[in-house]
Amino acid sequence: MNKTTQIVEGAAVAGAFHIEDVYPAIDGGRFPVKRIVRERVEIWADIYRDGHDIVAAGLIWRRERDHEWRRAPMTHHSNDRWVGAFAPDEVGRHVYAIEAWTDEFATWRRGFELKRESGADIALDAIEGAGLLTKAQAGGHDATAIIIRQCEEYLRTGSAEPLLTEALMDAMTEGQFRPDLTRSQLFPLVADRARARYGAWYEMVPRSQGSTPGHHGTFQDCIARLADIEAMGFDVICLTPIHPIGVTTNRKGANNASTAAEAAPGNSYAIGGAEGGHDAVHPQLGTLEDFREFVAACASHGLEVALDFAAQYSPDHPWLKQHPQWFKRRPDGSMRYAEDPPGQCEDIVNPDFFSDDAGALWNALRDVVLFWIDQGVRIFRVVRPHTSSLRFWEWLIHEVQLRHPDAIFLAQAITRPKLMNGLAKLGFTQSSTYFTSWTQKWELEQYLNDLIRYPERDFHRANFFVNSPDYLPDRLHSGEPWMFKSRVALAATLSSSYGIYDGFELLEQEPIPGSGEYLFSEKYEIKVRDWDRPGNIKPYIGELNRIRRENPALQQTLDVNFLPVDDVNVICFAKESVDRSNMVVAVIALSPEVREFWLPFGETKVTAADGKRRHVTALENLMTGERSPLDWGGIRLHIDPAHDPALLFRCLA
Amino acid sequence: MNKTTQIVEGAAVAGAFHIEDVYPAIDGGRFPVKRIVRERVEIWADIYRDGHDIVAAGLIWRRERDHEWRRAPMTHHSNDRWVGAFAPDEVGRHVYAIEAWTDEFATWRRGFELKRESGADIALDAIEGAGLLTKAQAGGHDATAIIIRQCEEYLRTGSAEPLLTEALMDAMTEGQFRPDLTRSQLFPLVADRARARYGAWYEMVPRSQGSTPGHHGTFQDCIARLADIEAMGFDVICLTPIHPIGVTTNRKGANNASTAAEAAPGNSYAIGGAEGGHDAVHPQLGTLEDFREFVAACASHGLEVALDFAAQYSPDHPWLKQHPQWFKRRPDGSMRYAEDPPGQCEDIVNPDFFSDDAGALWNALRDVVLFWIDQGVRIFRVVRPHTSSLRFWEWLIHEVQLRHPDAIFLAQAITRPKLMNGLAKLGFTQSSTYFTSWTQKWELEQYLNDLIRYPERDFHRANFFVNSPDYLPDRLHSGEPWMFKSRVALAATLSSSYGIYDGFELLEQEPIPGSGEYLFSEKYEIKVRDWDRPGNIKPYIGELNRIRRENPALQQTLDVNFLPVDDVNVICFAKESVDRSNMVVAVIALSPEVREFWLPFGETKVTAADGKRRHVTALENLMTGERSPLDWGGIRLHIDPAHDPALLFRCLA
Repeated sequence: MNKTTQIVEGAAVAGAFHIEDVYPAIDGGRFPVKRIVRERVEIWADIYRDGHDIVAAGLIWRRERDHEWRRAPMTHHSNDRWVGAFAPDEVGRHVYAIEAWTDEFATWRRGFELKRESGADIALDAIEGAGLLTKAQAGGHDATAIIIRQCEEYLRTGSAEPLLTEALMDAMTEGQFRPDLTRSQLFPLVADRARARYGAWYEMVPRSQGSTPGHHGTFQDCIARLADIEAMGFDVICLTPIHPIGVTTNRKGANNASTAAEAAPGNSYAIGGAEGGHDAVHPQLGTLEDFREFVAACASHGLEVALDFAAQYSPDHPWLKQHPQWFKRRPDGSMRYAEDPPGQCEDIVNPDFFSDDAGALWNALRDVVLFWIDQGVRIFRVVRPHTSSLRFWEWLIHEVQLRHPDAIFLAQAITRPKLMNGLAKLGFTQSSTYFTSWTQKWELEQYLNDLIRYPERDFHRANFFVNSPDYLPDRLHSGEPWMFKSRVALAATLSSSYGIYDGFELLEQEPIPGSGEYLFSEKYEIKVRDWDRPGNIKPYIGELNRIRRENPALQQTLDVNFLPVDDVNVICFAKESVDRSNMVVAVIALSPEVREFWLPFGETKVTAADGKRRHVTALENLMTGERSPLDWGGIRLHIDPAHDPALLFRCLA
Repeated sequence: MNKTTQIVEGAAVAGAFHIEDVYPAIDGGRFPVKRIVRERVEIWADIYRDGHDIVAAGLIWRRERDHEWRRAPMTHHSNDRWVGAFAPDEVGRHVYAIEAWTDEFATWRRGFELKRESGADIALDAIEGAGLLTKAQAGGHDATAIIIRQCEEYLRTGSAEPLLTEALMDAMTEGQFRPDLTRSQLFPLVADRARARYGAWYEMVPRSQGSTPGHHGTFQDCIARLADIEAMGFDVICLTPIHPIGVTTNRKGANNASTAAEAAPGNSYAIGGAEGGHDAVHPQLGTLEDFREFVAACASHGLEVALDFAAQYSPDHPWLKQHPQWFKRRPDGSMRYAEDPPGQCEDIVNPDFFSDDAGALWNALRDVVLFWIDQGVRIFRVVRPHTSSLRFWEWLIHEVQLRHPDAIFLAQAITRPKLMNGLAKLGFTQSSTYFTSWTQKWELEQYLNDLIRYPERDFHRANFFVNSPDYLPDRLHSGEPWMFKSRVALAATLSSSYGIYDGFELLEQEPIPGSGEYLFSEKYEIKVRDWDRPGNIKPYIGELNRIRRENPALQQTLDVNFLPVDDVNVICFAKESVDRSNMVVAVIALSPEVREFWLPFGETKVTAADGKRRHVTALENLMTGERSPLDWGGIRLHIDPAHDPALLFRCLA
């Protein structure tokens, strides 16, 4: 290791070099860039200093918790812009920085050779070159040996030739003294596991998984459903809160009624009751042991468990008695309920993230997450994080990921765009999106193009949900099968991460009139469903998820190109896998009419069997296996949404 | 002043608010934004925090050396983007920052009114509102009095009405407690005097201002030329180095010959001899007293003096003996001359800006600048700063401007674009540009568009020189009057700062064959000229400078719009003054042919006498005074470059 590079971190921004316009960097390095482990990270920067000497530059990078820097060279691209790359080989938080220094030996050699060609006296210049050898400080054993040998050779012979060998050039590149070495600030980067980018989510309410009407479902009931969910091809099962519910104070009734029948099970988001709080399970679901059994059963079905994490409390939550200082009270000593005037949520209170005892609250919430990690959970869907402290979430995610780099946090926040981006920046692995409510072709195209541009592409990972416990989008209210298929096909192909909330596959569609909420929502009551109800679209969803698994082009979101189809109700796009081995074209109807149209392919190229890039010559229908050649650089397509609103093709060279 | 805003500087970047995408900011605040004193500075930022409370934000700003912050409100524009403005009223370095906080009282009032409308019980809510009043901490005497009075009124009557008055709202806006106040980092800004943006420069070699062939010119000779230079309408007289010259060691002869006749005066950039160094004047020019007389004479002619500042040394410079540690030596103890292998500058040595005694060198160079400021100079044309340390220049300019905020530094550096931008960023008030060598219409349009885009527009101020002591552009070699006129008209109208180097007005055009250097350059010898030589273009230059003075549109560079003329050798652009009171259109030929063409004006609007924006209806020729109405939204123009290659018009409504 080069000793001169052991500069105190953060102190070197005022060195001889200007290191500017570093890419990627989120808000100048305030927030981390996101990547997937083992993915190549390309770093660009403008690097220059005064004068005309030969400049060298390199990347240094390491895991945030490690001590040893790792290095990668940078090369000059053009116009003082440099590029280098590295690939983090472990999941976790990393930092990187750029170093630049003058290559004094190469500069000397360039000048020496020019001067020698001009016929000038070069005796002094040779001595100066040898002098640089004596200042070399670093480099491995081999480099040092070469430097010493060539220096001795020069002194013995008096000839400059030993100073001009390529071996010495290489040794000095490694070992020379770098008095003007300048290091940029450190830039953070999170290398996540692959699931952070790709996965199909199935969200369900565990107490509604039973089969006897009026009876509270159990973890065992949930286990009984896994084969069916696996058959649909999902990767992640996300459970709404599994904790005891406050039922003695302000229990909510059906459809969020402020008075409830004695038998009403309460709002599952009113977390905490006599039986415990966020680290307990609702006794009617089973025991903690049952939950661990559920986690293990999921794993055996190739499914990973995600839990809702909601930093909200029923008035019965044990913390209200144990830590009253964590909650705000009103002037008469009563609780301050969550409110959205004039509406009230009398069954929920929010903690005060900035009380005098906030440190203990923050630790306790972190310990809740760590508790569920100990039970085998690695994914958390954080509910409405935009209503609590941004600084808290940044701290929590960092704290957890330092211990468990494989932890994934989804921000379930639908709010103003800058605030949603702010949550993604501060550390949420994935974000819910406006997709759920956006249906127009131009909306979808514009939204995707917003998500894939820099810098959003480097910190915001979308997860496209077609519905959620809180939201039944307008377009689903009429219950048309083609529309449910169109929406799930859009979600599953536009975004590498997507999800459905249970009931979608059964085409559940009845809202509270005039609202986007489900009528008789499971949030406030227990449902029992016939999961094989006629008309369900489970086989269709299963086909979509099969196609996603078989086509890496659909396992990423950032490489998407919208193709021009002259129909405002047909959206068409091509996606290509990161390794360029696979290209998929999706053509999806946004309205129910049967139509035929021409899809031009232009100059689109794809990787052929021989590894070369060639024009697309045929399409393979990924549902039917049928192959169709392109003709005149395009293809005539037929969509009957009543049968299938989506055509998915693999492109063949 | 609000006590809660007395946050330690730089410590608040992690507050409750995200304050992002601040405009203007150069490299995230690493370098200062440039403005002219009393000019309005508009600041934009994305500002948001979690939740839905009502947010307030403001600017704080002050001179860097002052202690008291000044404040300006910010208003919400749209989509969490805020804007505010201030106008620095003193020349000098400033800092600004953004503060954001929750307006808890306005949030309370909004909730209170919604709840009251819903018919809910509001007694507790009123107590909470009154509670906010008791926490108010700041605000002036009047606000405090209102807050106390309304609080007492509420307690006396039990009615919430006293809490809802507009006067109380205003008082609380000013005085309420702001527990979540977040301050951004500080951003630097330089407010320069107007000369930093606008001025016509005349650069001359003082020893060539005499009238007797073979005799060294004097400051008295320079004074004798002032009336002529004033008549040409220049604002700044820039002198090449006026210091003693090293003549005993490696003196250069005519055309940079490495051997020189005994009588050769030496290279005026080989600074320092037996008579002194950078703080002395060449004895043949006169005394320091004579120089001060020259400065005073310039002032009486409305001219300001600029001096070349070159951090380079002849081998005879006193510092080489006094401070040998400031200079690098070769292994045999000889001087290391400036070199550009295989070419050598044996009459110049460069200092080592990073020797162990560099601090003393930096101070000595700063003291040289301060010495000339004491003699009445405020403008310095720094020669080839890109070959010395960037960090040194940043330090020097800051050091000088803290003492003399009116000091102006021009970077005379033609090098790679990023390095030129780097010099402008680190503090140079103005920069020389590629204009001198660029002649094509597309080059000029593209270059101007590069200069006026963000962020370049906020740190880079161009000074367009038509020639320089080091550079006689190719296009002038043939000596055609129309070309000299075209080039000076382009410089004088495209850029609010521009300059000529003496001899240009006499159409001097003879290069060293095959080079861009003047043959028999004054750098190495003394010239005597007939300043009224027939064919000179002094009257033409005088007219250009008169038009510049009379038309504020030409006193700024950033508002320029290129108009479409269907001729690759005619460039056309409109410029409008900062206050929109004046619009000038320039049409300039880039080749000698006579031509006629149509200039469309489209929807171009200008401020009419009644202050309204109206379509342009007529043009006033600024050379002839002739007025021509527009017809069919444009005008047919005739250019005869032999007479005048430029048409300059004032636009009339």
